[in-house]
Parts: sequence; C-alpha cells; structure tokens
Amino acid sequence: MSQDKAKMKKFINDPEKVVDDMLEGLLLAHSDQLKSVRKDNRALARIDAPVKGKVAIATGGGSGHLPLFLGYVGKGMLDGVAVGDIFASPSSQQMLDVTRAINGGAGVLYIYGNYGGDVMNFDMAAELADLEDIRVETVVATDDVASMPKGHEHQRRGVAGMFYLYKTASAKAELGGSLEEVKRIAELANANVRTMGVALTPCILPAVGRPTFTIGDGEMEIGMGIHGEPGIQRGTIETADEVATSLVTAILADLPVEEGQDVSVLINGLGATPLEELYIVYRAVHRQLAEKGIRIYSRYIGEFATSLEMTGLSVSILRLDDELRRLLDVPFQTPFYTQN
Amino acid sequence: MSQDKAKMKKFINDPEKVVDDMLEGLLLAHSDQLKSVRKDNRALARIDAPVKGKVAIATGGGSGHLPLFLGYVGKGMLDGVAVGDIFASPSSQQMLDVTRAINGGAGVLYIYGNYGGDVMNFDMAAELADLEDIRVETVVATDDVASMPKGHEHQRRGVAGMFYLYKTASAKAELGGSLEEVKRIAELANANVRTMGVALTPCILPAVGRPTFTIGDGEMEIGMGIHGEPGIQRGTIETADEVATSLVTAILADLPVEEGQDVSVLINGLGATPLEELYIVYRAVHRQLAEKGIRIYSRYIGEFATSLEMTGLSVSILRLDDELRRLLDVPFQTPFYTQN
Repeated sequence: MSQDKAKMKKFINDPEKVVDDMLEGLLLAHSDQLKSVRKDNRALARIDAPVKGKVAIATGGGSGHLPLFLGYVGKGMLDGVAVGDIFASPSSQQMLDVTRAINGGAGVLYIYGNYGGDVMNFDMAAELADLEDIRVETVVATDDVASMPKGHEHQRRGVAGMFYLYKTASAKAELGGSLEEVKRIAELANANVRTMGVALTPCILPAVGRPTFTIGDGEMEIGMGIHGEPGIQRGTIETADEVATSLVTAILADLPVEEGQDVSVLINGLGATPLEELYIVYRAVHRQLAEKGIRIYSRYIGEFATSLEMTGLSVSILRLDDELRRLLDVPFQTPFYTQN
Repeated sequence: MSQDKAKMKKFINDPEKVVDDMLEGLLLAHSDQLKSVRKDNRALARIDAPVKGKVAIATGGGSGHLPLFLGYVGKGMLDGVAVGDIFASPSSQQMLDVTRAINGGAGVLYIYGNYGGDVMNFDMAAELADLEDIRVETVVATDDVASMPKGHEHQRRGVAGMFYLYKTASAKAELGGSLEEVKRIAELANANVRTMGVALTPCILPAVGRPTFTIGDGEMEIGMGIHGEPGIQRGTIETADEVATSLVTAILADLPVEEGQDVSVLINGLGATPLEELYIVYRAVHRQLAEKGIRIYSRYIGEFATSLEMTGLSVSILRLDDELRRLLDVPFQTPFYTQN
C-alpha cells in the first residue's frame, strides 16, 4: 500500500475489496431478509422476491452511501438493488439481473438518482428487459436544489430526498397499485421533495487514500453533492441555526409551502456528524417551519444517504397531500429500518 | 469564541448550549414517544410513564453518546433517563426526578455504566428515593474488557454492551417480572457480555474545541474508552480482519464460549466510522465465530453507543442461554430503534 493508503483511518482489508467484503458481511448478517442474485453479490433482492402480482421496484448506484441504496430493500420497501463500486455505477447487466429476479409479472419500476452513469446503465437494462417482455418504467430522483437552478429541475442530482420516492412508491406497490400508479406516485414525490446539503469536511475514497478536495479550517460548503460535487457557496462555518435557516430558505424558495400545509422532514447525516447535531438542526428547522405555520407531519432524523466519513448533513422537505401522507404511514421493514 | 472553537467542524449554536438545544430538538421531534419531567429537560420519560404495576428501569449518563442513553427509552425498553452535560454525569436530583416520574409501584431498577460520577449520583438518588418509599435496585454495567484485567471485572467501565442489559431487563419487566427478577436478568446479561473497542481518531468536546489527545497518522488504539480513556495497546493500523481477530480473541479469552453455544453480536460504530466498515468487521467476526462452532443467534450493527465524531468501533458478544435468547426476541420501540 502507498503511504497515503497505509495512513487511512479505515477498517478495511484491501481498498479494492471494500465492496465485496461489505456485501459478504451484509449477506451473512441479513440472510433472513436479503438474498444475492448474482455470484458476485452485486445484485440483491428481498428474500421473498419475486412477489407475484406486485409491481417490483429496483434501485441501484455506487457504494459508500449506506444505508443508500441497499438498506432500502425489504418488506414494504424496494424489491432489489444493483450495487456498484465506491461512488461508481453498477453495470447494466447487474441491473438486468436484479430486474429478472424481482419481476413478479406486474412490471418493474426503476427509481434512482440522476447521475450520468446510472442513467445510461439503467436505460440499457430497461431495453434488455423489454426484449424479455418485462415491462419497465423509470423515475429519476432530482431533489438536490443546489445542483442546478430553477427551471432546470430535471437536470438536478438525486440525494437523500430519494428516500421519499422509495417510501411512497413502495407503499403504493405494497397496496396493490399498478405500474402506472406506482410510477405516478414516485413522480409525485419527486415533484414535491427538495434537499439542500452542507459539508464541513471531505471524505476519503479507499482506493485513493486521501481527500480528493479540501474544505479549509473554519469553512463549510453549502450545496456540496454526496460525491463531493462542488456546492454553490463556500464560507465561514455558521451556527446550526444559521445553517438551518439557509437550507430551509433555499428549499422553500424552490418549493413553496403554504401556511397550514403539511410536510415531512428528513435530517440526514452525511457520515461523521453526531446525531446530537442533527437534533440541534432539527430544532431550528422545526422552529422556522412553525413560524410560517407549516406543520411537520412526520420526520426522519439520522443517516439515510451518507458519503463515507464526510462531515455534513442535508435537510429534505416533502410537501404532502392526502395521498402522500397516507403512503408515508404504511409500515416497512428492511435490515436497516423498521417503521410500524 | 476562541480560534479553536471558531474552527470546530460542528453544527452547533453555542458550545455551552449543545445539550439544551439537542434536547429541545429531540422533544420537538418525538413528543409522541417521550416527555420531559423537568423544566430543564434533563430528565425524560416514556410518554406513558408511570406504567402502573410494571417494574420501571432508569438509566442516565453524560451526553455525546447518542443513541446512548436517551435513545433507549420507549415501549418495551427503558422508562426514563437522566441527561448530563457532554461526558458529565447528571445530578442526583435529576435522577430522583426520573425515578419519581417512572415509578409505577413495582419498584425501579437503575442500569448505567460504571463511572465514578454516575455511581455517586445514582447511589444518592437511590437513598433519596428510599426516603419516599420507592424501592430502588441497581445494576452497574461493566462490559469493557480492556478497562481492567480479569479478576477485577466489577471495576470495569460500561460501554456498548450495556445495550444488552437494557434489552433483556426491559423485556423481563415488560413481561411482568418482579424487581428482583428484572435485576437478576440485568446481572445475568452483565455477567455474560463483554466488549472490546478500537479507536482511530479522537473526538472534540464542543466546550474545548480541539482534541484532548491525539492518535498519530497510521495509528490505532485498542481498548480506548468512549470518553477517550487510554486503551491497552497502541500500534499501526491493521486490516479489518486483523482488528476483528484481536477484539474477538480478547473477548473470548475473558468470556469462554463453547462450541455449539449461541451468542448475540453487537458491532457498534463510535461516530465517524462508515456503516460499510462495520459490515466488513461483522464479516470477520462472523467467520471467526463460525470457525469455532459458535452460532450468532442475532446481531446488531450500527451506532449504539458513540463518542461524538470519534472514528472507531467496538465488538460486544453476549453469551446466550434460553432465558436471555427469549428476552432478546421481545419487541421494543423507541424513537431510535424498532424491533418487531
């Protein structure tokens, strides 16, 4: 190993084996809930897949974001996932293998974040599935406000808010929705969710061994992506209340929420940020929304989409109507989360 | 703020207000499950406390370890918690207020980690409760193998393995056990659980603003405590497999487990360690135990007892008999965890 790699403060065996070792550990731990559908373990499905007659939902993406993506596979949630290397797209063949394994005859919906490699490979997998007469539809998550200005929403990246697409579309599928209905819900959630993130430190790719960029002492970067994509503003670290105000203000400028309307809020830690700090930020978000007469119907606070050991967090707001609210309440159980 | 504090990579408002702000956020978020029983919020109870006729269980300790301690208060788990400042014991008065709020007439069991301040204050609270005719018993968790050599088990610190005392004793209380029976279960779990930890980086106390100690580039410290107490061995960072082998070997040397016996395993992240790495370590622990013919009946992988943003992890092993196994299976629900 190089000097850099030898110094890495990581519990790994070999930088090239991180994903393989992780997947092996995961399958040993959760063999009652998950199964591998490829020899290389890069395609996983819920243990009872395919669920006959149910619309199946697949996702996928690079590793390094746990519990994204594979943490959302389970009962009441997604049916399968294709697993890429750290921050790299899985292959179209891996996605096709997932698709075959989960198709219960009612079609398959792909939900994933808007990144070039993922889009290309999922599109190719959909074409290959079509040749096998598996109906596939796609909804690409584009919740990251900072990644492109208003008017270019469909070019935005997908980040933590994708959780809400998973949650609501999966609930619709669980309740017996058709492929068209499940797709409509994922689109509805995507149209109504926005995320803003902030980072204080970079993360270190195991195969690189050092940060690929730096954020100076006393600095933060607003809008940074979960792979370290540049944000929209770098400046001195502000208080938690100021940071929360900036994030919520940017979200509400993009997604107006009226007084009296309900929302769900997701406070997501990017890796190293203590849970204590996520609650300090939740407090500020709650107060700001309460001042505007916006009611928080439900909230999720913890790690939902990480970036290895990056210090930072994101705030996602989902604007609710009756339909989304009901779907949020449907229970689910994965190895990473249980909601009753 | 000093230069150090201004540079802190933390989402906080004021180093002196971290716990207050965190508790306010927590109570805003989880008002359906938790309630404050003091004006200063430093004593919390499950929303339906006191539960009439049920043995109540209280814990407490310093902040900075979420989900320890307050994350374990809820249905099927603990009844109340006293909340100290960062890494500092709560007061005996705060503990007494918890005791009063949760006493359902069947007595109160204190379960907490073996630290000087906590022991002194919980003992005083127990005496004060006795004056009010509330029966109190105490079990102190001492699972950290590295903190004292064999033969001095009762002087060891309590760390992540305390989760198993909470889980099993709470289940016994939920099932209608008497104070004596619930206490016996907590003691049984404590006698059968051991933890070994390893740290790669220190954490930063908000009120201090810089690490209070350092671990050199390329170094790790085995046996470090969750407040940065010195470990038993400092050396070059090893592979995940080597680290896991060291930790499991030290645990099994202290707590023999026979071939064919069941255990539960807890892989706990100390703060900044990515979940991916915890699964890599789980893989190694699973293999090592399987080689010895030891069966992992259940496992918990994630953050259960943290140390702010410390990079590190611990492995806990609970040796199971039929009674502990049954109690592990009892469902519980807190704002931080749900087990069906």
